[in-house]
Amino acid sequence: MSAAAVSFGSLRLYDYPDSGNGYKVRLLLALLARPYALTPVDILKGETRTPEFLAMNPNGRVPVLELDDGRRLAESNAILFYLAHGSQYLPTDPWERAKVLQWLCFEQYSHEPYIATLRYWIRHVDLNGTRGLLAEEKRRGGEAALRLMNEHLSAHRFIVGHDLTIADIALYAYTHVANQAGFDIDRYPSLKRWLNEVAKLPRYVPMF
Amino acid sequence: MSAAAVSFGSLRLYDYPDSGNGYKVRLLLALLARPYALTPVDILKGETRTPEFLAMNPNGRVPVLELDDGRRLAESNAILFYLAHGSQYLPTDPWERAKVLQWLCFEQYSHEPYIATLRYWIRHVDLNGTRGLLAEEKRRGGEAALRLMNEHLSAHRFIVGHDLTIADIALYAYTHVANQAGFDIDRYPSLKRWLNEVAKLPRYVPMF
Repeated sequence: MSAAAVSFGSLRLYDYPDSGNGYKVRLLLALLARPYALTPVDILKGETRTPEFLAMNPNGRVPVLELDDGRRLAESNAILFYLAHGSQYLPTDPWERAKVLQWLCFEQYSHEPYIATLRYWIRHVDLNGTRGLLAEEKRRGGEAALRLMNEHLSAHRFIVGHDLTIADIALYAYTHVANQAGFDIDRYPSLKRWLNEVAKLPRYVPMF
Repeated sequence: MSAAAVSFGSLRLYDYPDSGNGYKVRLLLALLARPYALTPVDILKGETRTPEFLAMNPNGRVPVLELDDGRRLAESNAILFYLAHGSQYLPTDPWERAKVLQWLCFEQYSHEPYIATLRYWIRHVDLNGTRGLLAEEKRRGGEAALRLMNEHLSAHRFIVGHDLTIADIALYAYTHVANQAGFDIDRYPSLKRWLNEVAKLPRYVPMF
């Protein structure tokens, strides 16, 4: 790689174990063999809405990455981009890098709000009231995202280029637990092939 | 700047004039003094759902950037990142660059789905049925995003660092027309100061 790796110092991750957004970061740190300290934050107990947490991330969301000099970075996909700098998981070519970003944006706008939100409602809340009305739209949007990925992966081994990048890591996080939101991955053979390929990576860690 | 500017060749933008996501790209291209061809795509007439358009972007959304060799890039914030490479609008420092991405992610996840969606419903659809039930949540989310930005801009001239970046451009697009979704920007003085500062940039172009 032509870009120099960033020297991070010691790292701390504020995270909720059932968050796919947090798992993206944990998976990349494992692939990079990068040690870090973990501070669990319980979303269900309102711990992302305390004054202390909002001082770290005014948007009140996990994950948050903290450097040893106290600087903090929010937004899982921005954290992936930062940590992958200078590694094999972020292409240096401007076009390939832009394509990685295209898929990171797709993940946050057209995948996560459907699959992750529906999964969260089913596991931790309920489908009453407005959520019940929205569940069908979430399911349609989630199927559309999985269908688009399956189509793409039927012609490409990984999401961008010939090797695994942070675009794969970002999309893997909630896709590999989409069954927990009632999505049937068996309907998407290329997606299933890709999920298996990611799970076989050296240094792979599971979500829990 | 240490990074070399990308040589783009001739550019074509597929866009819908009332799209703030498209306007982000048009504003950056104007600031860069970069000529381009524009192909209008009418969302309201279903022109992003035709087989021809879906072959360009399977996710069926504008904007799409097309290079002269036929390569195409979707997702407004990825397009901004690509076009800003090697310019003053994208920091080269890895931390500042990650902060730019943090705010691009914030825009797509915590700002656009509230403010832009509500604006779209009001201008082009209606607030009947499920949309009516969701309008209040959209309004709350939009106010939260504007409040967070106002707080941040009360201590910072621009979103990241000392100069304008693509994070400002991305957030400007739908913030400066938030009044069209019923948001009162007068409640946010630092946001208003920043909006005026962006609008006074040399080579600034309006949305329409």
